Amino acid sequence: MPLKLYLAGPEVFLPDARAVLDAKAAMTRAYGFEPICPGDIAIEPAPTRHEFGLKISAVDEGFMNAADGVIANLTPFRGIAADPGTVFELGYMCASGKLVAAYTNVTDSHFARTRAWYGGELTVDENGRQRGPDGHALEDFEMIENLMLHGGVTRRGGHIAIHAATPDRLYHDLTAFEECLKVLAARG
Amino acid sequence: MPLKLYLAGPEVFLPDARAVLDAKAAMTRAYGFEPICPGDIAIEPAPTRHEFGLKISAVDEGFMNAADGVIANLTPFRGIAADPGTVFELGYMCASGKLVAAYTNVTDSHFARTRAWYGGELTVDENGRQRGPDGHALEDFEMIENLMLHGGVTRRGGHIAIHAATPDRLYHDLTAFEECLKVLAARG
Repeated sequence: MPLKLYLAGPEVFLPDARAVLDAKAAMTRAYGFEPICPGDIAIEPAPTRHEFGLKISAVDEGFMNAADGVIANLTPFRGIAADPGTVFELGYMCASGKLVAAYTNVTDSHFARTRAWYGGELTVDENGRQRGPDGHALEDFEMIENLMLHGGVTRRGGHIAIHAATPDRLYHDLTAFEECLKVLAARG
Repeated sequence: MPLKLYLAGPEVFLPDARAVLDAKAAMTRAYGFEPICPGDIAIEPAPTRHEFGLKISAVDEGFMNAADGVIANLTPFRGIAADPGTVFELGYMCASGKLVAAYTNVTDSHFARTRAWYGGELTVDENGRQRGPDGHALEDFEMIENLMLHGGVTRRGGHIAIHAATPDRLYHDLTAFEECLKVLAARG
């Protein structure tokens, strides 16, 4: 039985979501795994938008429960941070004791992106912590995301892949995704 | 033995982090629970920033493992979404089968915030999905955050509190936090 990998990421929001997810699924199979993607099954209608959202949540959690591991696409989405749905799923899979891997198609660290968000205007407080003009402290731990995410993966022996995709291929470039597959496959 | 609640949120980044966390902890005790906050213990130094970040990750995961539940502050932080560390922790606690509750001090829904992020310039595709100028689809499920978060809490019977804090009290107003405590306390 091949190990099942849940392919978490913001691809579900793309105009060509199905094509990108199909490409990721095919690549996953090529490395000997069985892919499970959000959006893999049609969700039945519900009386309200809210209830429809709850149904999708139930289906995607079921997918995660059925999976042996996750590869999370943490490429920043609508801002400087990863898609919150993907982040939730990474936390969920870390707690579930599953195989975890993550990647980003942006090479700027969490710190570099946050500094840029503040326009570079940082100050250093009396404890040596860097802060933005609003007084909020920045994490500076040489990580791709908030330390709970990067740390949660690394501390479990999971791989973090970082790749510089061109802006027009930010959500389509599968180089870093494939690197995660390679590392997982090499572990047998 | 009082139930232990992990108090997840972006408060750790505030200039007055300790004071805000102390206020949340005192309120938590007043409702009969034992609070556990990120930042509750000093982390020992590490050879590199990266390793220091890993240590914090380990300590905070340990806090979550020791807790019986979580109250997650999902108030948008540095953009239109919740703090990624908090989101990871909410997913972690949902998977762990712990008590979950969440709140936000912003009344605009996930959809309203995302629409505003696009400057209101949405189009509707052939399937009825609303999309931004970049073609990316918006979730419109009458939820405070991505459906995995709001759905993950609601489907577990967890409470979601929504409160309109004034901008200057966005990370200090504890009205919605207290509402979560009240609901959890009423359940005995």
